[in-house]
Amino acid sequence: MEEMHPVEAVIAAADDAINREDIDAVMECYAEHAVLVVRPGMHAVGKGQIRQALIAIAEHFAHTLMVEQLTMEVLDSGNTALVVALTRISAKGMEPVDRKAIYVFERGSNGRWLCTIDNSYGHELLEGVHA
Amino acid sequence: MEEMHPVEAVIAAADDAINREDIDAVMECYAEHAVLVVRPGMHAVGKGQIRQALIAIAEHFAHTLMVEQLTMEVLDSGNTALVVALTRISAKGMEPVDRKAIYVFERGSNGRWLCTIDNSYGHELLEGVHA
Repeated sequence: MEEMHPVEAVIAAADDAINREDIDAVMECYAEHAVLVVRPGMHAVGKGQIRQALIAIAEHFAHTLMVEQLTMEVLDSGNTALVVALTRISAKGMEPVDRKAIYVFERGSNGRWLCTIDNSYGHELLEGVHA
Repeated sequence: MEEMHPVEAVIAAADDAINREDIDAVMECYAEHAVLVVRPGMHAVGKGQIRQALIAIAEHFAHTLMVEQLTMEVLDSGNTALVVALTRISAKGMEPVDRKAIYVFERGSNGRWLCTIDNSYGHELLEGVHA
């Protein structure tokens, strides 16, 4: 087993904050200029839009959204880290959905890792682009 | 159709260089501290190791390796870009293989985009980690 990457702690904190619906705590995990894939073709750009999207997502799932990383791998290139993960999305009244998610993190000058690109849809972005 | 992202031109140049087996030209597309997934569990770290890996890969495919992006999508967060692509690997005497590849690029202070993380295996990294 590999040592835990510091990015994994940020993801664990973000998931915990989502599951408690603590939007302020979730937002602390994003960089100012981050991009969130709300769904393929629809992106929230910057923390203002991301906060609005997170509130809408929480409402969409009737405040029962639960996020869990079943497994993940971190590839680190200095101050940039790529996370490939199998992410389980659950909510009341729906079957859990597992997504092959992709996250990018950057380490700022203060040493903190923040999410810059949050694409839980992974390669689903390409669907429709190529049959 | 979206406008072409500058990273797409770098990828096109890299693919062309691979297909001509011009290792020097391929290396111009990588950042100094880049990471290349040679195969799941085996990473080349830094340009020296990446050059050696590219030479070994070219030899492995008997100098007939051809790489092509069937489709791709670029998500850009300021100076970091995530590329999700469907990448076709071909070589003499083998069936072409399509990989759900993931690339991360960074834009340097000179404005040039360079590859920092080259993971053509995408979520195959997770295989074996989680059954």
